[in-house]
Amino acid sequence: MKKLGLFLLIALGTLACSTSSTKKNALVFQSDFGLKDGAVAAMKGVAFGVSDKLRLFDITHEIPPYNIWEASYRLDQTAKYWPVGTVFVSVVDPGVGAERKSVVLKTKSGHYIVTPDNGTLTLVAEHLGIEEIREIDEVKKRLSNSDESYTFHGRDVYAYTGARLAAGVISFEEVGNILSNEIVRLDYQKPVYENGVVRGNIPVLDVQYGNVWTDIDKNTFSKLNSYLNSLLNFSLGINQGSFADQFKIASGEAWKIELIKE
Amino acid sequence: MKKLGLFLLIALGTLACSTSSTKKNALVFQSDFGLKDGAVAAMKGVAFGVSDKLRLFDITHEIPPYNIWEASYRLDQTAKYWPVGTVFVSVVDPGVGAERKSVVLKTKSGHYIVTPDNGTLTLVAEHLGIEEIREIDEVKKRLSNSDESYTFHGRDVYAYTGARLAAGVISFEEVGNILSNEIVRLDYQKPVYENGVVRGNIPVLDVQYGNVWTDIDKNTFSKLNSYLNSLLNFSLGINQGSFADQFKIASGEAWKIELIKE
Amino acid sequence: MKKLGLFLLIALGTLACSTSSTKKNALVFQSDFGLKDGAVAAMKGVAFGVSDKLRLFDITHEIPPYNIWEASYRLDQTAKYWPVGTVFVSVVDPGVGAERKSVVLKTKSGHYIVTPDNGTLTLVAEHLGIEEIREIDEVKKRLSNSDESYTFHGRDVYAYTGARLAAGVISFEEVGNILSNEIVRLDYQKPVYENGVVRGNIPVLDVQYGNVWTDIDKNTFSKLNSYLNSLLNFSLGINQGSFADQFKIASGEAWKIELIKE
Repeated sequence: MKKLGLFLLIALGTLACSTSSTKKNALVFQSDFGLKDGAVAAMKGVAFGVSDKLRLFDITHEIPPYNIWEASYRLDQTAKYWPVGTVFVSVVDPGVGAERKSVVLKTKSGHYIVTPDNGTLTLVAEHLGIEEIREIDEVKKRLSNSDESYTFHGRDVYAYTGARLAAGVISFEEVGNILSNEIVRLDYQKPVYENGVVRGNIPVLDVQYGNVWTDIDKNTFSKLNSYLNSLLNFSLGINQGSFADQFKIASGEAWKIELIKE
Repeated sequence: MKKLGLFLLIALGTLACSTSSTKKNALVFQSDFGLKDGAVAAMKGVAFGVSDKLRLFDITHEIPPYNIWEASYRLDQTAKYWPVGTVFVSVVDPGVGAERKSVVLKTKSGHYIVTPDNGTLTLVAEHLGIEEIREIDEVKKRLSNSDESYTFHGRDVYAYTGARLAAGVISFEEVGNILSNEIVRLDYQKPVYENGVVRGNIPVLDVQYGNVWTDIDKNTFSKLNSYLNSLLNFSLGINQGSFADQFKIASGEAWKIELIKE
Repeated sequence: MKKLGLFLLIALGTLACSTSSTKKNALVFQSDFGLKDGAVAAMKGVAFGVSDKLRLFDITHEIPPYNIWEASYRLDQTAKYWPVGTVFVSVVDPGVGAERKSVVLKTKSGHYIVTPDNGTLTLVAEHLGIEEIREIDEVKKRLSNSDESYTFHGRDVYAYTGARLAAGVISFEEVGNILSNEIVRLDYQKPVYENGVVRGNIPVLDVQYGNVWTDIDKNTFSKLNSYLNSLLNFSLGINQGSFADQFKIASGEAWKIELIKE
């Protein structure tokens, strides 16, 4: 390991941060649409048409196509840094037209997430908590004149509902009927220590720099009797190189890591 | 065809949508500049310098370099979702410095498009209609102190004029002289049925998902005596794969498709 | 050279432009974070949490990782087009956690740049001038509850300080102690004429179109007794092709060019 010049990094995802003041009218989008076509602009046009008071932002639109896990991770990584009351619209929706529900989650921290309930809420529900979930009535709560046989849900249901909620045109209660807290959750390896082995998940790669992040926190790591004074999460990197490329490591709910102290 | 698990998709571009309320101060950019350098930020800086009341948005800046057709398509795909009065600035301009005119189109729907008249207006003129076209006086209507021997037209003429129009600093009439409605139009295959064959164009690929879109609408398609209950336009895809890659299909005004019922 | 259909282009970076009016509340970001993860959105969430009056913009987040030179160039290319009083936050920071200082530069033109002092200020200091530099106190001037053993400086120090400065929560004087004007400067070949040779730097490629830009201005070039009536800077391109690809040219502070008149 020393030969590779490895160093330990900290995963951004776990930093605690309080943003206590309530702000209004922020609507933050993420999707797997990419930035090359007009889908994101159509969503924003619809939102701005709901109210020109809205402030429109983005997490990313470069979620790999259909990658629900990464949608869940990016939401979890960023939502807590936005003011209470911020509305997020997440559209990674391989099941569009199928049975998944369209929902709005209100977290215990006071953030709102508008999304298909397909696993996207997995991490944010764990870390920010579920205050209440309501189902979007897809027939009533859609852009007028979009009720043709086809609907672009990202624009006509999610962006439209998110915009009306963020602008105060509708209240959270008016989104639709209340649901139980039984959201769809993706399965992944949570950080554990057992019989001298620490197990965890590789949630994402640090794509820009090639570092490999894990969800293994300081407390779990320290059960190996190791000392990680200045770190919050365990990560792997090469100084100004790509650890991920060199060792052909990818990420996702299926990627696990085991650490053993020699 | 069945072996490939083909399914039919709907092209976004044809959904009708009314956004009837008039909003002010929205300025929406598209270009082939990409997001890696400072050209887009220079345009936005100039626009924000005209008025800090302006709300600045983007369609995309990833139009393939010099691809006027795709500029035309992206405008057409998104403009109708923005409120009446929205001003669009489109800068895909292989003829910069040449004879093409710089114009502002007011559509019958009440949207404004600031662009070189090089074909970019082809589709939006067809679908939203031409209310009136005015020529930008490139000598008078440019950023002060930019009248050196060289001008970055995107910034000094288009962004600057678009910003002044969107902010109400100038009226549409003050843009410049009125022109005839004879804009430069790109030639492409419109959807037709003839002697048992449906012909159409492949305007763009759904780049993010690899689907192939056509401009063949439901009515034209149904002349094959086929039944397409839930669709608006005819498209080709593979479930979670790229039809375009697999069959090496590209797009543009020159790409045509023929459908024959067996 | 003629066979290649070369033509001369003008580098954007040198156009003079006055934007004299003072505007408030604009905060403009650039980084090497890319747009695929949540880092940029976390910075913007923190900034919007400081004040919902702030207007948030971007230069680019596609600076090549760790490329301080390009950060310097992009700032220099765009800052002058933004109104006086605009605050820029630049985070290209290979030395994070090391000895480099965190500073705010006030330029003579009245723009503010929040950045690690690692060379990022090289070009903007030359062209817009140094009015005053203050050091950010990293312990006091950071997001509350981020004072764990690890800090994401881009978010907790730079975005946070930039937002407070742009929103008027703190004055420039309250950023921290005044420093001397001895910033870290990158070395590069400035345009010179000597003994029949013009020397200059290739600061960046025009990545979207493949043109090669130099910093050789019209006055220096003309010392070859050449006449460049309509140009401001000397550049190399192929009509609708990539000069950079064809001749394998890259850019940066280490790339030099020599011109000799035959």
